[in-house]
Amino acid sequence: MTTPNPLLDHLDSDHNHAVQRLSQLLKIPSVSTDPAFESHVHDAARWIATFCEEMGMNVDVMQPKGADGKQGHPVIIAKTMPKMVADDAKNRVLFYGHYDVQPPDPVDLWTSPPFEPTVRDGKLFARGASDDKGQVMCFLEALRAYHDTDTKLPCHVTLLIEGEEECGSVSLPAFLKQHAAMLDADDQTVCVVSDTSMWDSPDSPTGYTPAITYALRGLVYFDIKLHGPSRDLHSGVYGGTLANPATQLVRVLGKLINDDNQVTIPGFYDDVLPLTNEERDAWQQLGFNEHEFTGDVGSQPFGEKDFSTLERRWVRPSCDVNGLYGGYMGEGAKTVIPTFAGAKVSFRIPANMDPKKVAQQFTDWLHQHDTGGCRWEITNHGEADPVATPTDSPWVIAASKAIEQTAGQPPALVREGATIPVIADFKNQLGIDTLLIGFGLNADNIHSPDEHLGLDRFLLGCKTHAALLQQIADA
Amino acid sequence: MTTPNPLLDHLDSDHNHAVQRLSQLLKIPSVSTDPAFESHVHDAARWIATFCEEMGMNVDVMQPKGADGKQGHPVIIAKTMPKMVADDAKNRVLFYGHYDVQPPDPVDLWTSPPFEPTVRDGKLFARGASDDKGQVMCFLEALRAYHDTDTKLPCHVTLLIEGEEECGSVSLPAFLKQHAAMLDADDQTVCVVSDTSMWDSPDSPTGYTPAITYALRGLVYFDIKLHGPSRDLHSGVYGGTLANPATQLVRVLGKLINDDNQVTIPGFYDDVLPLTNEERDAWQQLGFNEHEFTGDVGSQPFGEKDFSTLERRWVRPSCDVNGLYGGYMGEGAKTVIPTFAGAKVSFRIPANMDPKKVAQQFTDWLHQHDTGGCRWEITNHGEADPVATPTDSPWVIAASKAIEQTAGQPPALVREGATIPVIADFKNQLGIDTLLIGFGLNADNIHSPDEHLGLDRFLLGCKTHAALLQQIADA
Repeated sequence: MTTPNPLLDHLDSDHNHAVQRLSQLLKIPSVSTDPAFESHVHDAARWIATFCEEMGMNVDVMQPKGADGKQGHPVIIAKTMPKMVADDAKNRVLFYGHYDVQPPDPVDLWTSPPFEPTVRDGKLFARGASDDKGQVMCFLEALRAYHDTDTKLPCHVTLLIEGEEECGSVSLPAFLKQHAAMLDADDQTVCVVSDTSMWDSPDSPTGYTPAITYALRGLVYFDIKLHGPSRDLHSGVYGGTLANPATQLVRVLGKLINDDNQVTIPGFYDDVLPLTNEERDAWQQLGFNEHEFTGDVGSQPFGEKDFSTLERRWVRPSCDVNGLYGGYMGEGAKTVIPTFAGAKVSFRIPANMDPKKVAQQFTDWLHQHDTGGCRWEITNHGEADPVATPTDSPWVIAASKAIEQTAGQPPALVREGATIPVIADFKNQLGIDTLLIGFGLNADNIHSPDEHLGLDRFLLGCKTHAALLQQIADA
Repeated sequence: MTTPNPLLDHLDSDHNHAVQRLSQLLKIPSVSTDPAFESHVHDAARWIATFCEEMGMNVDVMQPKGADGKQGHPVIIAKTMPKMVADDAKNRVLFYGHYDVQPPDPVDLWTSPPFEPTVRDGKLFARGASDDKGQVMCFLEALRAYHDTDTKLPCHVTLLIEGEEECGSVSLPAFLKQHAAMLDADDQTVCVVSDTSMWDSPDSPTGYTPAITYALRGLVYFDIKLHGPSRDLHSGVYGGTLANPATQLVRVLGKLINDDNQVTIPGFYDDVLPLTNEERDAWQQLGFNEHEFTGDVGSQPFGEKDFSTLERRWVRPSCDVNGLYGGYMGEGAKTVIPTFAGAKVSFRIPANMDPKKVAQQFTDWLHQHDTGGCRWEITNHGEADPVATPTDSPWVIAASKAIEQTAGQPPALVREGATIPVIADFKNQLGIDTLLIGFGLNADNIHSPDEHLGLDRFLLGCKTHAALLQQIADA
């Protein structure tokens, strides 16, 4: 039922060249966390800038200042020029991605070298193939198809491609604040990100279903340290006579989660929205196997009472102790009452919860407990807002249409339990919603040896973004 | 009211020589934990052996085998020969002490070098002055006084002086098992140890009161490790869907102590003996200031409800978390669900509690909690029995008389919250009780720079042990 489309046909016929172009980019070891790779990081930024310039875009390679005053890695801002765009162009896409990659270690475990892109079994193996160079190139190849077929773009496009995503996008918030105006974001703009996965689906002939991720949980992260006696003490001489901060930390923190795995802070769940019937029905169709999901890591489903695993993962807040430290941590025994003990504690919060409110609730809760005179040192290591784009928004409908057109099936509409802080920044600072349309798979080995991207998915990504630009214009 | 006593008079007049002899021993840096000092450890053992031989004792310098098959540091076994002892000699003292010392670090903080004994303000400064060379020499000088004044000893004496106390007396239990017969311990034998402190007493003109320590708490020490997913997980992707071992460890362990600071294990307190009225009355006289005790380390009194600090310290069991580890323990934030988390947990138990029973109760209690499928790895790092010598035993009465004779005041009868495992070994393997008669003070800086022993206390120790031998014979 698909109508002939010269853009999509071109992407089909030009696929091998697109793979070659992606391979060029993958050869550049743009590892952002290791200063030894710094010149390669710049090479990758330059490579993308050139790619965009060759399509006639207006390109700025910016040098952001990090929060600590240090120079950050280059940020590419590229915008379509008037002559690339149709006269009746409508709406704007702000495409966000990153050209930096994780370190390739352990290199020995790669079947082929991480920076020598190699095709095996229809998959392209290289560091960054899926995360995120391959997915960035899906969008850039879509733009290129318009250019190569002399087709005017139906909407305006701004690219924001950074080089610090793998080290926490540390420079980006300040950069966005300073350079927001450059991005031309308005209420006719939607952000598109291609850095997520498709839906693993045992029922699908391909093993996956295209997916739009429309919501992310936010994050509140604390280091809580309890200080007790002025020095480490002998637990025989002092045991039982004064407050041991390790014991008291455990005693107090042990009350945070009850036996039904609910957070006990009063009012904690007040702002959690109930799952709509529409979402519940939609999730039924996803064929999610919770036993397979947790079984893959040797665990069983376990969590907040009366909720399904998908609910716990996507629309319920969760609380995790991410670390414990203090006292004697080595082998064997040491009978010490430590001078302090601490924990890393974080909360994932679904849309409509306010990280600042949660942070205050938790802090107040800690102070309400008797610690026998021990003193809290509470460090807030960051708050990130949750985000959710309504599933009936014109942008989601447009993206769904594009996917149906190229994949021949409707996308799964999914949430994600994790947090991408920059998405909340786009919402808060630019006022725009984000569509997360990814072509990765959980099996792509991102951050691990033998990272790869299926070439069928690479092609699907290129074509979907080409179709998406038209649908965005029509939205 | 003291009758003239040539032994005590001799110790008075010979005091300067005794200080010189002690200084010779203190010059030998017999640090047992550092292999670099090994030859000095042997020198110190040899020095003591020679001292004993010169008094006519039968001396064996034994080489114990450690539990791991390695050679331990020498153990000196010295016994009085028949001609040293009165024909009507009665009873036997097994004197236990150690000639090894703690490392002197940080050396820079010593006012005079740690192995150059120096007298300042009536105190002898050197590593080991108080712990335990100075206190061992109190007993050896008492013996020497009998020898030098041609006085027959009124009781038999066996010395057991080891060189591994500062590294946990690792070889001693096996040594005791193997060589018990050499020690001639029978129901006419009492063990005497001089490795504890006098009672800090603001009411006493000297600032201290002689003390007999008649009871020690025992110890049970565990490493409990909870294993969860097969690898570290992203807390956004998995948070809320499976059991986080750090969260579950805290949730379960948080139930171990209730808000009244009582251990919640069923039956835990069943074997705890109530405090007798005699002890309660005696402790009233000690003038213990609980606010000073905990205030010295910046804490306030805090512990099991309805008990005083001295009760909590001496006759109540205590439970301490000695260490916490797992997940992210560094600076800042890492959003990880760790594959494991663990804690060091120990119990101090007063006389009549059984460490094996406590260990089983705790293990059972852990297994009774739902951990969402996480698996316990429980390591028992040791059990030590509590010990208590009845305060109305003839040995305690004899020691009290000796102290009244030399100090002019009755001793404080005290307990100790800490554990000396070898004392339980003497009780369990040899069937004998122990008198802990120490001449240290908390202010002696043992294990710290500027360790010292007041020369008045050194003299008092020498005289008290000389008198004690007579009282033991008369018991």
